[in-house]
This record gives sequence, structure tokens and C-alpha cells, in this order.
Amino acid sequence: MAKRKRELARGVAMVGAGMSPFGIRPDVTNRELFAEAFLDMKASVDKGVDPQEIEALYVGNCGAEMWESQSVIGVLCASEIGLTPRPALKVEDACASSSVAVREGIIGIASGLYDMVLAGGTEKMSVLPIDWTTMALACGSDTTYESSAGFTFPGLYASMATAHMEKYGTTHDDLLKVAIKNHSNGALNPKAHFPMTIKDVMNMRIAKAKEKGGPVPSWADELEFLNDPRYNPVIAWPNTLFDCCPITDGAACILLVAEEIAKDFTDTPIYIIGTGQASGHNLHDRDTLTSIPAAQVAAQQAYEMADVGPEDIKIAEVHDCFTIAEVMAIADLGFFKEGKEAATAAGEGMTARDGRRPINVSGGLKCKGHPVGATGAAQVVEIFQQMRGEAGQRQVTNMDVNLALNHNIGAHGTTAVVQIFERR
Amino acid sequence: MAKRKRELARGVAMVGAGMSPFGIRPDVTNRELFAEAFLDMKASVDKGVDPQEIEALYVGNCGAEMWESQSVIGVLCASEIGLTPRPALKVEDACASSSVAVREGIIGIASGLYDMVLAGGTEKMSVLPIDWTTMALACGSDTTYESSAGFTFPGLYASMATAHMEKYGTTHDDLLKVAIKNHSNGALNPKAHFPMTIKDVMNMRIAKAKEKGGPVPSWADELEFLNDPRYNPVIAWPNTLFDCCPITDGAACILLVAEEIAKDFTDTPIYIIGTGQASGHNLHDRDTLTSIPAAQVAAQQAYEMADVGPEDIKIAEVHDCFTIAEVMAIADLGFFKEGKEAATAAGEGMTARDGRRPINVSGGLKCKGHPVGATGAAQVVEIFQQMRGEAGQRQVTNMDVNLALNHNIGAHGTTAVVQIFERR
Repeated sequence: MAKRKRELARGVAMVGAGMSPFGIRPDVTNRELFAEAFLDMKASVDKGVDPQEIEALYVGNCGAEMWESQSVIGVLCASEIGLTPRPALKVEDACASSSVAVREGIIGIASGLYDMVLAGGTEKMSVLPIDWTTMALACGSDTTYESSAGFTFPGLYASMATAHMEKYGTTHDDLLKVAIKNHSNGALNPKAHFPMTIKDVMNMRIAKAKEKGGPVPSWADELEFLNDPRYNPVIAWPNTLFDCCPITDGAACILLVAEEIAKDFTDTPIYIIGTGQASGHNLHDRDTLTSIPAAQVAAQQAYEMADVGPEDIKIAEVHDCFTIAEVMAIADLGFFKEGKEAATAAGEGMTARDGRRPINVSGGLKCKGHPVGATGAAQVVEIFQQMRGEAGQRQVTNMDVNLALNHNIGAHGTTAVVQIFERR
Repeated sequence: MAKRKRELARGVAMVGAGMSPFGIRPDVTNRELFAEAFLDMKASVDKGVDPQEIEALYVGNCGAEMWESQSVIGVLCASEIGLTPRPALKVEDACASSSVAVREGIIGIASGLYDMVLAGGTEKMSVLPIDWTTMALACGSDTTYESSAGFTFPGLYASMATAHMEKYGTTHDDLLKVAIKNHSNGALNPKAHFPMTIKDVMNMRIAKAKEKGGPVPSWADELEFLNDPRYNPVIAWPNTLFDCCPITDGAACILLVAEEIAKDFTDTPIYIIGTGQASGHNLHDRDTLTSIPAAQVAAQQAYEMADVGPEDIKIAEVHDCFTIAEVMAIADLGFFKEGKEAATAAGEGMTARDGRRPINVSGGLKCKGHPVGATGAAQVVEIFQQMRGEAGQRQVTNMDVNLALNHNIGAHGTTAVVQIFERR
């Protein structure tokens, strides 16, 4: 077969997007979290939508079997929000599950089968003790060759971080500055798991020490605080607590429609102009530890389909499950050169909310939280709001956000999804 | 939005199909089972195929997280068969997972994004003790309202069977005759989990009793044997052991291509002319216990798209996880009237391999086995072989099998997929 440019047979637009509050949510199940996201999405559709017009439901979810003893999360969400008997399914690619769900929703409309699709994801993770949850997450690595040898995700990403340090001279402070930047964004996000800056955290610790009447730490700044192992312990070196995203409950979803009917729902649809997805080998079987090859392939596909380059993208939500992941992401996407340039981008303010290339203005997985099956869809929710000027306090204002991108990784890079969005 | 006929933007054909041997397979993992199915599929492509031309992989799987502590089964299968970095994903709708994977693969080609897709499923179930596996399967029901109240699948389907008995006077012998018929078919299937007739089983038991020197049972026929609770105990009344499908390891997959290139791979492609999928409420929340409403909706969609009726279908592979399930399936599909007519169809030979409407000529889930995430794809493998006259000893010969259908249920009817195939 001849090589050809990948094109969708029909254009697809996003006309609504919503998410539940992210955090520890002991009072609700996955299906209830998803219903919260659904109602939030419904309220976002400017001209209104009759949910009965939704023709299919794609739900990303990583491990409800493990956390809730519940399979079939797709049809349960459909039943919960009144969509039965619409076709509903769960898609799973670990932490990329809901980006894959969104992509499959796009494909569903492009196929001609559907005109309107609800796509998103949900994850309820806080229900088990933390060590069980770490084991449940480790099922996303290779059980035969990795988790069975003792690897968990902080360790897998630590291997990539130490390789990056060795090859490029990257420092732990470079990584911590990613966390500082993302908390600075997430502090402005009312739905974030931890809506606070690192300075807020530092000041809380100082206040607590004063309250207790013990010795009061005298950190000069956030970086010094983060370098104090009494307050920011090592999880798997160089990943300290603040290099890791939290374990979060949450859900997010978007409403996709065929391009030709998009304006029936809003005057400001967001068009999906590029989608890429690739798989990768497990870490033990990969040629490089300092980049995610699957992300490079997915980005290339998305850029080609959208007919744009990395230089055209205004803002991006990228997969920062660990701080090193954001450093790799912004290089894999072509925004910065792999190595020192990417490692120092956060520290130099390049990726700040008011920087040249804002990255993770939502707070990212690091601060907003990482309910694994909902994360990709939540990235897209942020993009929907930023592109329409509806992101409130954290709205990017130093540029017209007419082109944006989400980058979502499954596991340690065995899946990557990159999607490009346009406001016309 | 106006109601419109559902149509795919592009035609899709199947040019290869294969499966692993089904059974207890302690020596292999899910990814190895899938590789077996892949190699079998590859050998079935008449004019050959370069696997590097495959553009995406859709893998149905229900519970590798629970049985193998392994998520991301889609990308692992891709890596195992050399498809990295092609996009790969897992789709899950309990026991309908791989029919959903096949349907999503069809949609992927119709969307214009792909010309060639590998779709299938795998399940490795025998690895846990049987009671754990029963619990893992129960995650497919509603954890909040059903499994937590003590229901497992034999009990859920038993509720449907007793309702059928109450409403229509269906007898347990009616149900047992479904098992006898399906074992009679499966005995001719070398890849079946139990390639033997019920008479074979009965004769084995007699021989064993003689060997032991004890009293030799004097059953007149299979039905009398199956009514002997010493040899066919009740699991959840009226479901006896032989009313239930086994716990099976196995994988299956098919190769889908855009219609316009199908003849590059074989002179006898099998075209997918109808696909339907619907979701249903859980059993506790459903209006009827004697049919699967989702199956009726999915069938209606598939018939409409294919522009055929039930009377046109020559053979069907239907979801007989329990004998009552086949009785409901052949009514939901419109082959027989719900009630006595459907309940007695097997006993009257209507659904036999040489009957008016052969059902489950493969042996069905009952005899061929039910590796849940692989079952739907395995149904399609049988259809591929039957439509091309390649089913060996169990080939249907009393008619030209030019139109066939597969019917796959997720859980207790929360998902149904119906697909219609044509040989031109």
C-alpha cells in the first residue's frame, strides 16, 4: 500500500467540556464522578444540548476493576447519566486512557456512524491503601519484566531522570522548578487537587512549626524548602515527593460533534485538526531513556494531519506525572531542544503562564491531580476553556490562544496521544 | 438533529481470521496467546500480508488486571507481534470486549484514518483459583447493587432462566438440549476447549465407573445423564454444570481492510455490512428478565444498516454463556418467537448444524470455551471460515452461507453487539 497523508473523512469539533472537582472524593463512585463531569460539560454548551442526541459514549478508565471491583465502567456511566441504550465502552491505555477515548470518539464521528459523541474518563483511586494503589498502578508497566522485578512508577521515571542527569547534566533543581511552576498555575485552578503554590505549602509548614513551638525553619525560598528532605522526602531518587503527581479521584468529559453541525451548539467551537497516537516498548526494551519515542511519533502524526509545526502551538497541556516527564514532553513535542534547553525551560520562565510557551497552565498532573483514566480528557477541558477565554484567573492573556495541543502518556511511554485544537 | 440511517463512510472487509487453541493454557501469557492467534490469522490471508502494513491494533480484554496483574494489554500485544509503534488500545465491555474491538476497528477504517486494522481479543483466566475467577467475573455486574449483594453470573442468568420458565413454561430439559446441540458441534472443532459430545462425556463416565468396579450407571441417553445430579450438579438452579460455559484461556483476531483494497489480499473477502451496539441497564434495573433489550436494539441497528432481515441470515454465532442465553439470543435476533418457540428450537433440531437455522456451529461459548475478552472475535473467526467453506468437518453444507451474523453479550446484557457479514 502506498504511504498517504492521514486524514479524517469528516471534520470534528468540540462544543462542550467539563470536569468534576479533582481530589480525594471518598463520597462518590466512578459513575457519580463521571456524572459530575457530564453536568459540568452540559452547562458549558452555549446554546444548550439535549443529551438524548448523544449517540455513543467512550469512557477512559485505567483500573476500576482494581480500585472498585468494577468492570464495564462505560455502560455504567451511560446508565448513570441516562444514555442507555446508546453504545458505551471503556478504553484503556493506562494513564492515556481518556485521550484515547477522545481520539476514538473523534474517529467515531469521522466514520459517519455518529454525529455526536460524549468522550471522557474517570478514575476513583483513593479507595485503597496507598501501597495497594502503587501496586495497582504498577500493572501498567510490564508485569513479566518490570513490576515483578520490583519496579513501581516513581522508580521507572527515576531511571529516566537519572539518565537525563547523566547525559545532559540536568540537576534536581531543574526538575523542582517544574513543580514550582505548575503549582503556581494550579493555585489559580479551583478544581485542582492542591490549589496552592509551593510558597503556600512552605508558609503552611512554617506556620505549623511556629504553632508547635518547635524550631522554625528559615528557608529563603521554595527551592530551599523543596531541598529539605525533612519536608520533601525522596520517593525514588531523584524523585522527591514534590516531583510526583498525587493520587487523585476525578472525571472529565467533552462533547464532540460533526463539524457541519458545530455552530448549532456554540458560536465558538473548538476544532480538532490533528490527532496522533503511537505505542512504545516497555522501558526494559527501549533504545533511549531520555525521551519517549512514542510521543515523538504521535506528535509527528498530529502535526502532519494539522499541517502545523511546534512553532505554531500557543499553549500545551503535557503529561507531567513526574517532573522529568514534562522535561521530556516539551522536547518530544519539538518545543525545546532535548537536553539542557528543555531541562531549564521552566527555571528560565519560558514555560510559565506568561512565558513564551505556556505549559500546563491548568496546574498539570502535578498540581491539578492525576486521576489516571480522566487525565487526558481533563487536559482537553483546560484547552477548551483557554481557547475560548473562559479560564478565569489562570487565563493566558499575553497571546491569542488559537492553536493548542494536549500530550498524554500511557504508563512509562508505552502509549502517547497528541492532539491539536484550533479556534477559528 | 434529524434521524438518519446509520452508514459508514467507507466499506470494510475481513481478509484474515485466526485463533489460538482454546482451553486451559498454563504455559502462556495473554500476549503469547494473542501472538498465536495473530500467526494463525496471518496464515489465513490467501495472498499474504506484510504485518508492517497494519496501522492500528484494537484488543478486547476483560480483566488482565485481575488475572495477570497487567494493564495496557493492547500495547503489550502490539509489542509482542512486532507492531510497535502502531497505535494500540484495549477496549472493555466485559464478555463483549472483542466484538466491541472489532466494531471499533471497522469504525477506524471507515473514518479514513486507517486502511488496515488488526482487531481481536485475548483472555487468560485459568491462572487464579476458580472462586477468585468467579469474583473477578462478577466485577462485570453492578458492584454497588448486584455482586455486593451476593450475585455471581450463574445466579444472574439463573434469574433469567427461572423467569423464562415462569412466563413461558420453559423446562430445564429445553435448556439442556441447547448444551447437547452445541457440544455436538464443538466436538468437530479441533480448537474447542472440550471437543466432545455430551454422549462422549457420558460414555467416559460409564467407562470410568466400570474401571472402578462400582455400580455402572444405566443412562438411556444424554438427557438422562444430564439429569443425574451426581454427574451434573446444580451451580445456581436451574443452571447445572452443563448449562454453564467453561473458564477458558484463548485469543482470536481478524484482519480488517478498506473495501477497495480487499481483493489485494484474497479473492474471497468477507464484507461487514451491518454493525450494531447498544448498552443496557443492570439486571436489578431492567424491565424484563426474559430477553436482553440491548441485543434487540443492536440487532435492529445491524439489520437496518445491512438492509436485511433476520430471515435472510443463514447462520449465527450467538452468546451462549449459559444455555438460557442462547434461548434469549435467538429470540432477540428475531429468528424465533420469544417463549416456547425459542426455548424448543434446539430440541426440535431447528438450530442444529444441518437444521433450518444453524446456531453456534463452532460449539459456542458452551463447548468451544469462553475466554471472555476473546469470545466475540472468535465468533467472527468461525463466520469467516464458514462463509469461505473452510470450516472442515463442521462446515455447514445444506445451504450457501452467504450471510451470517455474530451476537455477543457483555456481562448480563449491559452490552450487546450484533454484526452482519456478507460473502459476495
